[in-house]
Amino acid sequence: MQTMAASPPTRDRLIDAGAELFRRQGYTGTGVKQILAEARAPFGSMYHHFPGGKAELGAEAVRRSGRLYALVVAEAMAGDAPLADRVESSFRQAAGRMRESDWADACPIATVALEVSGSSEPLREACAEVFEEWFAGCTAMFAAGGVPEARAPELAVQMLCALEGAFVFCRALRREEPLHVAGAGIAAAIRAAAAG
Amino acid sequence: MQTMAASPPTRDRLIDAGAELFRRQGYTGTGVKQILAEARAPFGSMYHHFPGGKAELGAEAVRRSGRLYALVVAEAMAGDAPLADRVESSFRQAAGRMRESDWADACPIATVALEVSGSSEPLREACAEVFEEWFAGCTAMFAAGGVPEARAPELAVQMLCALEGAFVFCRALRREEPLHVAGAGIAAAIRAAAAG
Repeated sequence: MQTMAASPPTRDRLIDAGAELFRRQGYTGTGVKQILAEARAPFGSMYHHFPGGKAELGAEAVRRSGRLYALVVAEAMAGDAPLADRVESSFRQAAGRMRESDWADACPIATVALEVSGSSEPLREACAEVFEEWFAGCTAMFAAGGVPEARAPELAVQMLCALEGAFVFCRALRREEPLHVAGAGIAAAIRAAAAG
Repeated sequence: MQTMAASPPTRDRLIDAGAELFRRQGYTGTGVKQILAEARAPFGSMYHHFPGGKAELGAEAVRRSGRLYALVVAEAMAGDAPLADRVESSFRQAAGRMRESDWADACPIATVALEVSGSSEPLREACAEVFEEWFAGCTAMFAAGGVPEARAPELAVQMLCALEGAFVFCRALRREEPLHVAGAGIAAAIRAAAAG
């Protein structure tokens, strides 16, 4: 017997469809019709659930996929090994996921952040909110992993910059090496900070 | 007396207009009509100069702005000070340029690289070509600046990842700090490599 829970509510289906399309082809290149088709949602549902239209759905999609991604990263960096080893290995895992997805599975919101930060304030704010959460989450993880508290915030920013930048290069170059090299650099910085 | 050289040829105007629009609003969000209007070029000139249409112009624009950007970065990192200081200062200069341009003046091709690497092979190849040139150029600059030759390629990749990632965060957060922190991290890695 099928339960009501088998299909998520329309609003959630719209956000998930939007998030996936934005990740693959960017915000500007994704039309409302395509989101509706992907979500198998009727036309009227879009403006019923998102009176602000595509920008409102976009901001929700950024928040949701940004938070999901934080969980993915935290899980990839969890474990009992030294923090630097866990970070380095999570960059290699990210590289493997990119290769397996034909170089699509990178950061879910960087494309949107670059594309629309100059043109849509609600979308820029959603990206900024998610990025601040990432900085805080990584800072806490680094401090818990033996990085001196005074150094943890800057190492968190450096790690996230290295990850985002490496995604740009791996995506265009279709090879894993930038993520491997970036991860090794951050791991070395963490080792130096934890030792110092 | 005005010479013919006062106005660049139509083909160049189209490439420059495309490059500037792609940087500000991405490739997907830029229409051929807008490029023609910005370049003050007649409709027929687009397909006369670029039989492959927007994608062909886009690939040319990526190559041109990628090479120009390499010159900007090389100039920002030139000088007689130790390499690590020059690199750190160039990240701060980049942050200042972002602030002055209302957070628009970041990497000219990262947006295109993220947006279309999955959908347009000619554009992806143009981005990849430019990125490989950047890696090679920075490797040579680092080796000339006292980084051991064996370490120069990885530090070049790490610096470019740090720069690209920091651009994503500065653009969305509208503050200079990610570029400052990323630059300080790379400068520390260069100092360690040059000393060790």
